[in-house]
Amino acid sequence: MKIAVMGYGTVGSGVVEVIEAHSDSIPAKIGGESLEVSRILDLRDFPDDPHKDLFTKDFNDILNDDEIKIVAETMGGVNPAFDFTMKLLKAGKSVVTSNKELVAQKGPELLKTAEDNGVNYLIEASVGGGIPIIRPLTQCLAANNIEGIAGILNGTTNFILTMMIEQGMSFDDALKLAQENGYAEKDPTADVEGHDACRKVCILASLAFGKHVYPSQVETQGITDITLEDVEYVNSANGVIKLLGQIKYINKDKIAAFVSPAVVYNGSQLSSVKDVFNAVLVRGDAVGDVCFYGAGAGKLPTASAVVADIIDCAKHANRKKIFGWGEGSEDYVVDYKSTIEMPFYVRAKADKDSVSKVFGDVKYLSRANQSDDELAFITASMTENDLNEKLKGIEVMNTIKVTNY
Amino acid sequence: MKIAVMGYGTVGSGVVEVIEAHSDSIPAKIGGESLEVSRILDLRDFPDDPHKDLFTKDFNDILNDDEIKIVAETMGGVNPAFDFTMKLLKAGKSVVTSNKELVAQKGPELLKTAEDNGVNYLIEASVGGGIPIIRPLTQCLAANNIEGIAGILNGTTNFILTMMIEQGMSFDDALKLAQENGYAEKDPTADVEGHDACRKVCILASLAFGKHVYPSQVETQGITDITLEDVEYVNSANGVIKLLGQIKYINKDKIAAFVSPAVVYNGSQLSSVKDVFNAVLVRGDAVGDVCFYGAGAGKLPTASAVVADIIDCAKHANRKKIFGWGEGSEDYVVDYKSTIEMPFYVRAKADKDSVSKVFGDVKYLSRANQSDDELAFITASMTENDLNEKLKGIEVMNTIKVTNY
Repeated sequence: MKIAVMGYGTVGSGVVEVIEAHSDSIPAKIGGESLEVSRILDLRDFPDDPHKDLFTKDFNDILNDDEIKIVAETMGGVNPAFDFTMKLLKAGKSVVTSNKELVAQKGPELLKTAEDNGVNYLIEASVGGGIPIIRPLTQCLAANNIEGIAGILNGTTNFILTMMIEQGMSFDDALKLAQENGYAEKDPTADVEGHDACRKVCILASLAFGKHVYPSQVETQGITDITLEDVEYVNSANGVIKLLGQIKYINKDKIAAFVSPAVVYNGSQLSSVKDVFNAVLVRGDAVGDVCFYGAGAGKLPTASAVVADIIDCAKHANRKKIFGWGEGSEDYVVDYKSTIEMPFYVRAKADKDSVSKVFGDVKYLSRANQSDDELAFITASMTENDLNEKLKGIEVMNTIKVTNY
Repeated sequence: MKIAVMGYGTVGSGVVEVIEAHSDSIPAKIGGESLEVSRILDLRDFPDDPHKDLFTKDFNDILNDDEIKIVAETMGGVNPAFDFTMKLLKAGKSVVTSNKELVAQKGPELLKTAEDNGVNYLIEASVGGGIPIIRPLTQCLAANNIEGIAGILNGTTNFILTMMIEQGMSFDDALKLAQENGYAEKDPTADVEGHDACRKVCILASLAFGKHVYPSQVETQGITDITLEDVEYVNSANGVIKLLGQIKYINKDKIAAFVSPAVVYNGSQLSSVKDVFNAVLVRGDAVGDVCFYGAGAGKLPTASAVVADIIDCAKHANRKKIFGWGEGSEDYVVDYKSTIEMPFYVRAKADKDSVSKVFGDVKYLSRANQSDDELAFITASMTENDLNEKLKGIEVMNTIKVTNY
């Protein structure tokens, strides 16, 4: 069975590598045929690559090749990936993708086009890299009403926070180390400001609740304001700070979804997810909490998820998978700041009298070398708007959500 | 769509409860129809049950009802569940099960009969209760060669060990507490001796590597020999003792599989799995380590896995899922004691001189109130046979495998 790969970067070249490394075992999984990469689309030249005869710079070489039934889109970005994918689906080819930006922006249109043309558009690699999450969420947990999802969805920020927590490194030094290790881009904005996690929250929320969520609907805060002081105070409360994507079911017409740093108490499965690893915790009404852990990025883990989707397409060549979600709407994602109650971590230049006047009894935290005029505490459960109202007149240094996962 | 439930114990009654609780959301997942429990088989009387009109003591009422297309077998035990399931499959009905004993003993025959009759035999609930593991293993990780699996597969023993580790409770007291909480049976043998974990290892190994493994092929050791002294020594090495089922790929004709207590170092995802929770860690050549965590037993979690399989059957009413494994063979599971090398924890009445004469440099452990003639240490990597050879002449109090997961 002939397939094509579009985009020969980290993931795309990994897809070719994984298919070749498993050429012995794949045929048994798709009814005896083998998978053959017959075309690779990339604008760059790879003169020394062993697959150099397969390269093309012309998308039409793939679109018009009737023998190619499945295409892996590992280009990233919305354009031209969107245009290419639409044309392929309309031409009756199935497409599998690792492109979270495209799925988060254009998911419903692509899924509908696949359905209309009797082909598959599979997206496992677009969330959580190699961690199986989409089939477990849509199939294995089908007998649950999902109450909420919380995920560590970005390896770069998790690495930085782990270095701050375990090594006492500053944010800047940890970011530099992440860049040296190849975990962070030269321009780390998409990771450290939470945009990457935001896209994955959109896809998870869309899958879990059946209506598309757009990145612009998800309030997103990164980790650049987290200091070592915050890390130390939270440690004294037996917790760690993680960048979490959180989704909460409200009713069949409303959800909340947001990305932010959050205090996770030790004992939670999310608290022990370290370095570049990712995890997604799903809370169902029947199953309780289940958690999926693994490498959230990286060449071979992500490529293995792409290839699993290729295998699934090949197995179901003549059948559409029942899978997908509908269009979103403007008022579907609520303003969580006025509706969702949770405790908050607060660090402020204040004295206990003024704090207890406003917040009543709170849990005070401590750190080594704490200065006399600085306090940190955990509030009772309240909305973020109520918190901000109470904090008027107090010199706030940082606030962080406290999660119940 | 009419279904039947055989066995109205904890899981069976949970299946009915989950179907009713999700009657609003299930139809959308199976093409519009609703699921209706039309028959419940149980030899006991339930005069006050709201479903009392559905009960029957005659299996033929289900077998001969042409409207019933899917049956949930939640009876447990090999007989008569095996006979009933075979008859149902031959009659063209799909069967879903939570019965790990039956699947571990008779899996290949049942799967083959399902295939021959164009129906499904789905078993998600037979491993790990509510934790999605079978689809992730067979579909999501299809592009990996699986190198090994390690699982905390029994909630009762994990609860007992957690109480020993965190509360300093003795084994006997922790067992008693587990019984009081309803986590352990009056006769706890199947749990504490590892038999329950053994059955789940058989199913996982069969799924992962395509050939059936029988319980008699899996060397199984329980947790009754673990003492608080062992727990303390291992704690000083930054580890915890867990009952692990381990499976290792050797080559396409050979695997190793065993159940035993094992030292897991903190930092492993398995080390933070506490109380009655379960987790399965899968090591793939492309994806690395992925881990699935959740409630391994309990009424609603297990029932939700059964109902997910019912939904899957209902969705694919006219199509056989590609899923299953072949017959096993006598020499398929190797004698791990002569082949698999690993470090061991040893507690002995000995002095350092005699230990280092035999083992060379070892890592010594410590505990409070350690007696003068007692030593505990971690050896270099070796086979269990080599270990036992070296230990001749030393007064051994306990040995425990050290895992690399």
